[in-house]
Amino acid sequence: MISISDFTLHRSLYTNSFNFALSPGTMSQLLSSSCSLTFSSTNKPYNQCSASFSNFNRVGCDFSRTRFRRLFSQQKPSKRFTFVNAATVSTGQETPVKTSSGEPFKPKRVMVIGGDGYCGWATALHLSNKGYDVAIVDNLVRRLFDHQLGLDSLTPISSIQDRLQCWKSITGKSIELFVGDICEFEFLSETFRSYEPDAVVHFGEQRSAPYSMIDRSRAVYTQQNNVVGTLNVLFAIKEYKEDCHLVKLGTMGEYGTPNIDIEEGYITITHNGRTDTLPYPKQASSFYHLSKVHDSHNIAFTCKAWGIRATDLNQGVVYGVKTDETAMHEELCNRFDYDAIFGTALNRFCVQAAVGHPLTVYGKGGQTRAFLDIRDTVQCVELAIANPANPGEFRVFNQFTEQFKVSELANIVTKAGEKLGLDVKTISVPNPRVELEEHYYNCKNTKLVDLGLRPHFLSDSLIDSLLNFAVQYKDRVDTKQIMPGVSWRKVGVKTKTI
Amino acid sequence: MISISDFTLHRSLYTNSFNFALSPGTMSQLLSSSCSLTFSSTNKPYNQCSASFSNFNRVGCDFSRTRFRRLFSQQKPSKRFTFVNAATVSTGQETPVKTSSGEPFKPKRVMVIGGDGYCGWATALHLSNKGYDVAIVDNLVRRLFDHQLGLDSLTPISSIQDRLQCWKSITGKSIELFVGDICEFEFLSETFRSYEPDAVVHFGEQRSAPYSMIDRSRAVYTQQNNVVGTLNVLFAIKEYKEDCHLVKLGTMGEYGTPNIDIEEGYITITHNGRTDTLPYPKQASSFYHLSKVHDSHNIAFTCKAWGIRATDLNQGVVYGVKTDETAMHEELCNRFDYDAIFGTALNRFCVQAAVGHPLTVYGKGGQTRAFLDIRDTVQCVELAIANPANPGEFRVFNQFTEQFKVSELANIVTKAGEKLGLDVKTISVPNPRVELEEHYYNCKNTKLVDLGLRPHFLSDSLIDSLLNFAVQYKDRVDTKQIMPGVSWRKVGVKTKTI
Repeated sequence: MISISDFTLHRSLYTNSFNFALSPGTMSQLLSSSCSLTFSSTNKPYNQCSASFSNFNRVGCDFSRTRFRRLFSQQKPSKRFTFVNAATVSTGQETPVKTSSGEPFKPKRVMVIGGDGYCGWATALHLSNKGYDVAIVDNLVRRLFDHQLGLDSLTPISSIQDRLQCWKSITGKSIELFVGDICEFEFLSETFRSYEPDAVVHFGEQRSAPYSMIDRSRAVYTQQNNVVGTLNVLFAIKEYKEDCHLVKLGTMGEYGTPNIDIEEGYITITHNGRTDTLPYPKQASSFYHLSKVHDSHNIAFTCKAWGIRATDLNQGVVYGVKTDETAMHEELCNRFDYDAIFGTALNRFCVQAAVGHPLTVYGKGGQTRAFLDIRDTVQCVELAIANPANPGEFRVFNQFTEQFKVSELANIVTKAGEKLGLDVKTISVPNPRVELEEHYYNCKNTKLVDLGLRPHFLSDSLIDSLLNFAVQYKDRVDTKQIMPGVSWRKVGVKTKTI
Repeated sequence: MISISDFTLHRSLYTNSFNFALSPGTMSQLLSSSCSLTFSSTNKPYNQCSASFSNFNRVGCDFSRTRFRRLFSQQKPSKRFTFVNAATVSTGQETPVKTSSGEPFKPKRVMVIGGDGYCGWATALHLSNKGYDVAIVDNLVRRLFDHQLGLDSLTPISSIQDRLQCWKSITGKSIELFVGDICEFEFLSETFRSYEPDAVVHFGEQRSAPYSMIDRSRAVYTQQNNVVGTLNVLFAIKEYKEDCHLVKLGTMGEYGTPNIDIEEGYITITHNGRTDTLPYPKQASSFYHLSKVHDSHNIAFTCKAWGIRATDLNQGVVYGVKTDETAMHEELCNRFDYDAIFGTALNRFCVQAAVGHPLTVYGKGGQTRAFLDIRDTVQCVELAIANPANPGEFRVFNQFTEQFKVSELANIVTKAGEKLGLDVKTISVPNPRVELEEHYYNCKNTKLVDLGLRPHFLSDSLIDSLLNFAVQYKDRVDTKQIMPGVSWRKVGVKTKTI
């Protein structure tokens, strides 16, 4: 039940204020009573707004002001956006990807669900920069999670309204915004019928494994939110835009850690003298990862039954802050999560190195995972959109560029820290998760490379894209958020409050 | 939000009346406005109650009165229950199953979730008859589905209150009743803490594939209801009774129709020179079947992470009306669904034969499925309970006894009908489902046989357990409900109303 009955919200984005109530169907677990939020967007001048980024300016930034130059925005020149990274405006640093037929892509309308989140924001800007017509659909609940859990991005991030106005002022490109919950089908159907997307990139899920293991209500919320949201997207495509290509973010965690090579989505099995190619067996190890397994099965069915065209991007752990587009201006800066709920091992290690805290390896540290730079995330999504799945095809790509053991990551951060003059120690802490700490792990990832992915490797970008950010923002680090507080084995039925 | 805040409901079962409101979280999709039901249990004498069964007596019954004899119930002799099947009271026709150690089972407290449904009711009575302490947990929503869709069981069925009072009067055995929705954790947790089950048999899910394909709201309801209900049961076991054995009803439909043999839950795969035993790949083909796939993955994770002991019974298509216990009295009679939503091909064929309607084979009729007699369902569940899974074990049994093609079923019913003097024709109708109509199908089912399952085969029981019921109740057949009305391809977003 969204109280924003006026669907023209996205058109009146910068009116004085708007209210919405989170739906009881998706958020009742999170809130003891009904919750009403008020976001104000008061058309405040950006010099006021940028006051909140004083820290940003004070500590200095990788894209420092000396590297900016004045640029006149393409539509409404404004003094409010004067500093941009000249090297990356509009054209980008990479050539646009080609379709499989070799033709340049035609401009497409792309709906990015979850476009205010970490991967979603970078992707929305990248696609907009590459000439796609982009709309963001987001209920902004990720920001609420931070409020509820007392967390914050290491990097200061602007409101979605300020982000989009900044983007428009710098590039002249508009990104439409639809604020609402895709679990509410009335909202989603209106959005679909209004925007008529050629492709939907679906990041709009609760995406933290520890979050899903906090308590029963968060476990149920995660599965309900993710599964119902995706079902609604599938029904919306079928009903309103059946040729629309669904690009869905899955996770490498769906596969678990089998003792055989991990293929891309399917495996050919010979058994008792017969052979078939079947979905690769799934062994997910959190309620979050399981929700993605459920999504994959649901999507595969609708491809077969309805002819939906879908690409499931089984993504590894994403690292990095900067993409060409988010680096254009401080208002576009992406989030950097280092806490024990939304942060990942690599981010946490960098922050720990920056503040002089020992790197906290969970257990033996032999856990191997797949990783990629966020600059490759946006590249992969663009490649998937430019080369869509066929009608009825459920295509699975393993979206990562490198594999590392957790202990290897600690070693890499230690060495990189030393180059910056940091004294980095590593300790082992009890593993809050249930996972093998030493295991075989060999995942295939050739399909995106075959489409043209040019990877950024960790060794080349660690210091630039991660450690420097951690050092620059180390005054914003809340060290209480670093140590694990969520146990896979101790998760209980009582709702945890801060 | 269950308005029955007084949890002593199950203790005051026969007070004059009680009200409950179905939760918006699970039922909002079904009802355009909030719905409040009132069930009256007015202590009416059973001779009044049985008036509703005049049809039953009029058309005669397979267990006719000539085969009954007077029996005094064990606690409160009552003239109200005078006719029972002497052969089956208390001791049953089969010897109790043994545990794997060879010892007779110890009485256990078994909670049967969904115990008012088709399989649940037969199972609850069977376990009670075999000396288990049984409680039924049910929100009775299956009866609501009939009202909403204009359907009815071929056999007249009594209210759950009358059923249990009848069972008590005949056998002296009490079955506790907890009326509520397991998706509401407050209700489930109170029930768990009150009853303290040693085993939970979980039938409490929306169990019809066509129902899940009626429209978007039913698809979402099916997945949300089934997945969240099972998650809640898992959390309840972890929190309140961690040694409790979960016996969960899955479906053979989780596997789909792969071109290789179907093993029991797991398959050993050798790939690129390495070997592992992994969950058998799942290819479900309706939102209902997919919900069971999701459950299986969730349960497997909790076995690994929390040490839950679970048995997943991947059941085939169940047929038959009678079990030893339901045959004891007309008030205990089980339901017989023949409609296109809740009925199955075999039931439908029998009813069609009885009323002179051609048997409607969907498409080519080469679809092969696994089947079992409901007398084997109750036997299998008893075997699983008597031989529980180990802590941390996720055990999967394929629960069926025979495989048939749909066209073979039609032939079998035709021949059996001829023995009863029926002229049976068969026609092919367009297949409303998306499924292969000719395919390889070879499923393993040795684990329950190894535990002692003694199957009832269709050839021996078809006429007795199915065709006779269909003939006896043919005046109750609503022929409008026979033809398929739900299309896998045409399912849309508008909520369908009758």
